[in-house]
Amino acid sequence: MKVVAIAGSIVGSKTKTAIQYATDQLLDKYPDAEVTLLDLAEYDMQFSDGRNYLDYQGDTKKVTETIMEADALLIGTPIFQASIPGSLKNIFDLLPVGGLEGKVASMIVTAGSQRHYLIPEQQLKPILGYMKAQIVQSYVYIEDVDFYRKEITNDDVKFRIERLVEDTMTLARTYQRILEEKEAEYDF
Amino acid sequence: MKVVAIAGSIVGSKTKTAIQYATDQLLDKYPDAEVTLLDLAEYDMQFSDGRNYLDYQGDTKKVTETIMEADALLIGTPIFQASIPGSLKNIFDLLPVGGLEGKVASMIVTAGSQRHYLIPEQQLKPILGYMKAQIVQSYVYIEDVDFYRKEITNDDVKFRIERLVEDTMTLARTYQRILEEKEAEYDF
Amino acid sequence: MKVVAIAGSIVGSKTKTAIQYATDQLLDKYPDAEVTLLDLAEYDMQFSDGRNYLDYQGDTKKVTETIMEADALLIGTPIFQASIPGSLKNIFDLLPVGGLEGKVASMIVTAGSQRHYLIPEQQLKPILGYMKAQIVQSYVYIEDVDFYRKEITNDDVKFRIERLVEDTMTLARTYQRILEEKEAEYDF
Amino acid sequence: MKVVAIAGSIVGSKTKTAIQYATDQLLDKYPDAEVTLLDLAEYDMQFSDGRNYLDYQGDTKKVTETIMEADALLIGTPIFQASIPGSLKNIFDLLPVGGLEGKVASMIVTAGSQRHYLIPEQQLKPILGYMKAQIVQSYVYIEDVDFYRKEITNDDVKFRIERLVEDTMTLARTYQRILEEKEAEYDF
Repeated sequence: MKVVAIAGSIVGSKTKTAIQYATDQLLDKYPDAEVTLLDLAEYDMQFSDGRNYLDYQGDTKKVTETIMEADALLIGTPIFQASIPGSLKNIFDLLPVGGLEGKVASMIVTAGSQRHYLIPEQQLKPILGYMKAQIVQSYVYIEDVDFYRKEITNDDVKFRIERLVEDTMTLARTYQRILEEKEAEYDF
Repeated sequence: MKVVAIAGSIVGSKTKTAIQYATDQLLDKYPDAEVTLLDLAEYDMQFSDGRNYLDYQGDTKKVTETIMEADALLIGTPIFQASIPGSLKNIFDLLPVGGLEGKVASMIVTAGSQRHYLIPEQQLKPILGYMKAQIVQSYVYIEDVDFYRKEITNDDVKFRIERLVEDTMTLARTYQRILEEKEAEYDF
Repeated sequence: MKVVAIAGSIVGSKTKTAIQYATDQLLDKYPDAEVTLLDLAEYDMQFSDGRNYLDYQGDTKKVTETIMEADALLIGTPIFQASIPGSLKNIFDLLPVGGLEGKVASMIVTAGSQRHYLIPEQQLKPILGYMKAQIVQSYVYIEDVDFYRKEITNDDVKFRIERLVEDTMTLARTYQRILEEKEAEYDF
Repeated sequence: MKVVAIAGSIVGSKTKTAIQYATDQLLDKYPDAEVTLLDLAEYDMQFSDGRNYLDYQGDTKKVTETIMEADALLIGTPIFQASIPGSLKNIFDLLPVGGLEGKVASMIVTAGSQRHYLIPEQQLKPILGYMKAQIVQSYVYIEDVDFYRKEITNDDVKFRIERLVEDTMTLARTYQRILEEKEAEYDF
């Protein structure tokens, strides 16, 4: 199982901290999983200009190829202006139509206030659904007060991330098994 | 009245063609309006890194300052992956919280299919509303078949753009008058 | 100016309390306005069966006719299962397509938690927009803790309702005036 | 496996026709499934007044109990005023918070135009997600032109319903199996 965790912001540390915690949990609980963390702050991405992702060079090619090879995505994002940041939306723009088909996707969201709790539901899920991802319905929503100096200080948040990691892997295995059984059926 | 028209895509010609038509109408029907067309394809924009827009340089500074000085915005956008492109979302990320307060905003959307008709309603209006724009409720939704060689070939589309321009200016004048009357009240 | 205030729930007192406060403010500040409060709990409504609203009898006819004659609507609603209640949605189902054209609509929402803050934006505004209402962008969102024994106990909430009433009336009056001017223009 | 199919409208025949076709497919392909079709037009439902669903009488009690006992729901709905009808929303209002936990839910939507294609995504999925259903991401969207005299006349629509039925059952069965395995794990 290839899992790619994405820190979708190029500013601040909270989304990175949360996605790092999820990645550590994954490595700890699922030693067989192959886990990659993509922190967008470390890559020099181009805006999508309509080309196929394989036709880009450098970081843009590397990031999109890594995502396309994943079986499951753990998407970390802050909320900017009541939606996901342009930097994360641009990643989706770079991928093909239906580019998340066969992948499970789950979400970890960092925000300043409870008031934006539904933004993943309304702004991010419809994009993932359109791209044909299998979405883990529940997401982890973390407020600024739950962090202190690049650490998560709220144990309930840690517990919810651990559960999200588990739900993501369970759903990924569910779909993998469905596919295997279907393929076996068609073989006879 | 300062109007800024934005072509929010860096790829393709349809959004630009539609927003150019709207701009021409504006100049023709409202000769007193001061109109600027910002075609994002012509600017080299940086991803928002959390700075105030005045602290950027070059194109990023120029585009954001032009928008911040507008009384009304005509926002042109294609649909990428069931939402607005990252390039347009990034423009909003660069502006301050509440950065569209006191501005009227209207939308012209180009898309490949009727199926995405509600995306401006669900993905763009909530962003504009959060940023405190006064939104023109009805928008112009144009399909690919309505264009041929960088021209709008559907007269009904032209008519709807003309009406949107009129509605935008009417709403902008409504709010301007409300503000003037309120200010006059407070002067006594 | 005919204003109709709707308490869209048939259970509980909070939405009614809030909409009553708004109505009292309206009567106090705008003595010329003709104000009607429709508390759905007091009416025996039928589910929409596709008939024109004029073809119903009794309460269903009375409530829908009252709404159709309004210039402005103050819509009060609780949040049930992450959306507006079926009782309020049914009112909209009973009205014609485009039935709110020419009407200003504003929203007062009562809920148990900050987490549902965006539900009016995502679930109610698209309905009002589709029905062609002129929507007051900002809404008043009130939490359960702001009430005690059928009274609003939070002064900030009272202030926000007062401002919403003012914004609603200002938009309705200015819009009416601009429409009159346009009509006068076309007369020559 | 208990499957409940719901025709969520009390007016017209299209939603009923589509949900009947899905039910027939279910009975044909999954003879072990226990299938119930609830056509809301045949029940006299009360508006939710905040009581627990077990405290109602008559049709309201019968419909809600049937839904609560289901392992999977096939929800059929028309689009009224850019959302689901009040009659269907009322069903959800009658159920408890989190009332769809452990159930798989899929959607069949009938509408007059392609323009409303995203309404299930934006108005219905968030409600099902909030109620903790496991949602089948893809839904069947059927236009009026695909029906003639209470029959589906478009073979592609029939094929898509068959596939939705299959996806619903596959997800329900696999999910059930994985839950059983998890429980077995915790037993040791």
